[in-house]
Amino acid sequence: MRLHPGGATADVDAVEEILRRGGDALRKRMARAEAHLEHVTAQAGAPLAAHALATIAAGGKRLRPLLVVLAADATGGASSEPDSEQALTRAAVAVELVHSATLVHDDVIDGAQLRRGHPTVVAEAGRLTAIATGDLLFSRAFAELARNDSTAQLRALSDASSALAEGELLQREDAYASHVPVERYLRRCELKTAALFEAACRLGALTASAAATELADALGSFARRIGLAFQLLDDVLDVSGPVQHTGKSRGTDLLDGTVTLPLILARERDPQLTAFDLASLASPEQAEELCDRIAATGALQTARERALQFVAEAKQMLPAILPDGRGALLDLLADAVVERYR
Amino acid sequence: MRLHPGGATADVDAVEEILRRGGDALRKRMARAEAHLEHVTAQAGAPLAAHALATIAAGGKRLRPLLVVLAADATGGASSEPDSEQALTRAAVAVELVHSATLVHDDVIDGAQLRRGHPTVVAEAGRLTAIATGDLLFSRAFAELARNDSTAQLRALSDASSALAEGELLQREDAYASHVPVERYLRRCELKTAALFEAACRLGALTASAAATELADALGSFARRIGLAFQLLDDVLDVSGPVQHTGKSRGTDLLDGTVTLPLILARERDPQLTAFDLASLASPEQAEELCDRIAATGALQTARERALQFVAEAKQMLPAILPDGRGALLDLLADAVVERYR
Repeated sequence: MRLHPGGATADVDAVEEILRRGGDALRKRMARAEAHLEHVTAQAGAPLAAHALATIAAGGKRLRPLLVVLAADATGGASSEPDSEQALTRAAVAVELVHSATLVHDDVIDGAQLRRGHPTVVAEAGRLTAIATGDLLFSRAFAELARNDSTAQLRALSDASSALAEGELLQREDAYASHVPVERYLRRCELKTAALFEAACRLGALTASAAATELADALGSFARRIGLAFQLLDDVLDVSGPVQHTGKSRGTDLLDGTVTLPLILARERDPQLTAFDLASLASPEQAEELCDRIAATGALQTARERALQFVAEAKQMLPAILPDGRGALLDLLADAVVERYR
Repeated sequence: MRLHPGGATADVDAVEEILRRGGDALRKRMARAEAHLEHVTAQAGAPLAAHALATIAAGGKRLRPLLVVLAADATGGASSEPDSEQALTRAAVAVELVHSATLVHDDVIDGAQLRRGHPTVVAEAGRLTAIATGDLLFSRAFAELARNDSTAQLRALSDASSALAEGELLQREDAYASHVPVERYLRRCELKTAALFEAACRLGALTASAAATELADALGSFARRIGLAFQLLDDVLDVSGPVQHTGKSRGTDLLDGTVTLPLILARERDPQLTAFDLASLASPEQAEELCDRIAATGALQTARERALQFVAEAKQMLPAILPDGRGALLDLLADAVVERYR
């Protein structure tokens, strides 16, 4: 677990609290995942390893590996048998590798210079290397997970990975659109973000017990809602800032033409925004002005409430899925997603 | 099997001959793979399907699916049981999807406008869509193969897919290099091209019989040599032309800074070429001049002989791997790789 200044750090406390409560066992599992992540990336031959490693090492909160580990733990498996511990580590690593691959490719698409305070692969090594590095991270994810000898696990990951790409394509299709229905926006969030959260919990349950398919489904539904909330709150943050919290100027997504829930809701409330063309935004300053107008409609509060509703739904599901308090840490993780926006 | 004017068509006759000799059974299997390839791509939701479909539909010789089918056939499985036929179709499709994903990403890297006489995804829809389309094709490949319930198959594909990305990164690292050892060049060819040929034969053998691991290894070695020859001859073709055969001007790869075997060998023979800096090439005309100088050293002939040697090695292996003439069509396929350069 690495934490970098400049990233979204407000939920660090919440994640720390989960690790604290999870005790040594949880910390060990997360440390093992972190070490294996570096190992897999470093294995990849000298030149590319440098870039892939830099991406991985730049860290982030490792929310997805944490979901894998917590789901496995709650499923009651992930006993201390070395084999099942290794399977768990590989699953956690595979999910993070797919996530990292997406980040590297997203940075090519956006031409981003910095991520988590570090130069992006595309900024440092160019488009060519960045595309190949992302492809490599994708491929390694599947190579890693294939060692678990479970096609159910591989299916979970490949479905999520397809969803990520579809979500990205839908987002490009909707770019600068004058009208995006809320349902369409939510579908995009499911594909782009929630599907990998879902896969993380599925993988956790399945590595703990191959027979736990029903539990895997149920935890998948739980995680999908957390993922939706995560994306919604991310989109709120783009409009609300503050800059010192997000590390980027307000309205960055809007300037890229991405139509997010705050704008969709604000357009329903402010007739002048209904007609507003995102393509006419010419500068970060104009994007910030647009953010203020969106905020003035109360859309941010509504979007936040929608996200909190998803979190509440997820938390309500837990006692039935995991009785006897076995879902306590997953419950805390649901809170962690919200925490970072307080 | 679609064939387009402007592509490399000289081996069409050889491939046609294989299909003729393979009879109805082979044609049916290839037609089934082709239909499923379109189905999988079309499934992928409206917007992206259009781009993915265009890439797939632009065709090519379907050499890799053909290797899958021929290897399965030679292994003696791929009986007419519906299940094993479906597994074979999925394996053939998965290999071609990975190949297509690579082409789409390569075109982003090269900024290519045309492929097989059709506009590339990047030319038609931009970098953003092209990267996501490639990611989607990758993901679908694994999703498709996961349905075969064989981790050995998934491992074969993910290893090849990792190799492709590594090969691309090595190639970028070697770009414009003043000295590239032949061994290093061959390693790049193995990663970039031969690994997927190898995976195709492995997958064919394994779909025919899960127990055929030794045969899968042996056919994999056979295919790796074919793949090496294929890449070497491709690199010869870049220097030799003729343009009406390749559909691109001579020296295109050299102009991109790719140091290929003809240049490596020519540098050993012509001291002025030893010192020549690829980065100084400023126009297609200068690249053509360089091609003439390379040809004058006799390097093309040596490179061609090296490729033919790989093909000969591969062909020599076959009788021991597949006695009683069971390798006849794979033997023809080895010839087909050479044919296109006659």
